[in-house]
Amino acid sequence: MNDFVLGKKVDLGEFTLSEQEIIEFAKAFDPLEFHTSIEAAKKTIFKGLIASGPHIFHYIYKKEWVPRFGKTVICGTGVKEWKFIKPVRPGQKIKVEVTIIGMKPEETTGGTAINWLFEFRNEKGEIVQVLQTEVVHKNP
Amino acid sequence: MNDFVLGKKVDLGEFTLSEQEIIEFAKAFDPLEFHTSIEAAKKTIFKGLIASGPHIFHYIYKKEWVPRFGKTVICGTGVKEWKFIKPVRPGQKIKVEVTIIGMKPEETTGGTAINWLFEFRNEKGEIVQVLQTEVVHKNP
Repeated sequence: MNDFVLGKKVDLGEFTLSEQEIIEFAKAFDPLEFHTSIEAAKKTIFKGLIASGPHIFHYIYKKEWVPRFGKTVICGTGVKEWKFIKPVRPGQKIKVEVTIIGMKPEETTGGTAINWLFEFRNEKGEIVQVLQTEVVHKNP
Repeated sequence: MNDFVLGKKVDLGEFTLSEQEIIEFAKAFDPLEFHTSIEAAKKTIFKGLIASGPHIFHYIYKKEWVPRFGKTVICGTGVKEWKFIKPVRPGQKIKVEVTIIGMKPEETTGGTAINWLFEFRNEKGEIVQVLQTEVVHKNP
């Protein structure tokens, strides 16, 4: 089916988010003060602006995952686990890999339910965010 | 602490998303064809446009949850379970309730980790989406 194989790992490259991008996303979808205000963020435990967790995922999902795999999607069924482990700051380089960690036939649609694990790492190689999501894909 | 109590349920009201809102969100963050194109969506299993799952949650989170509880947030730690159960279509009325289903002291920050369960229902009372998220809140 397409070239989906259990255990397959795909390098989605690296990216950074600017102060402006972080603030714009947060004002629209996650308006907590440590995401929307440089000044207010200084007084929080983060001591400065950090990106919204969902921003990190949606940025790379739209830019890299959808162009590669979007045409094969029948539907998404949800997110199994999504951990915001370390803060991500403006200009910080984030590397992303996605791995197929589960595959099973999906009877209603006749497709294949794939469990994708996204891993986000900082410059030191430390995990900053992980997300597992199940998506049903078309068979070839 | 504040007025957080285990089992507390809060009515976040109801809302609808228009075709234009659905398409705009999806083009920015979830550009799959059943979210971005009325014509293309007709040829999918959904037989028409449906809202992006994350759009449903972020809409009410920004509009109702953050104004009520945002000032007490120290940090978010992640999403435990997020299920997209039934499609949500333009103009469809969605009712939202959020319940505190877990509370425990969070030692690093001295706050309280609260497990929030969001439940989204359609006009028939059927669950269309559920999400559990853990957020650390300030103590009073």
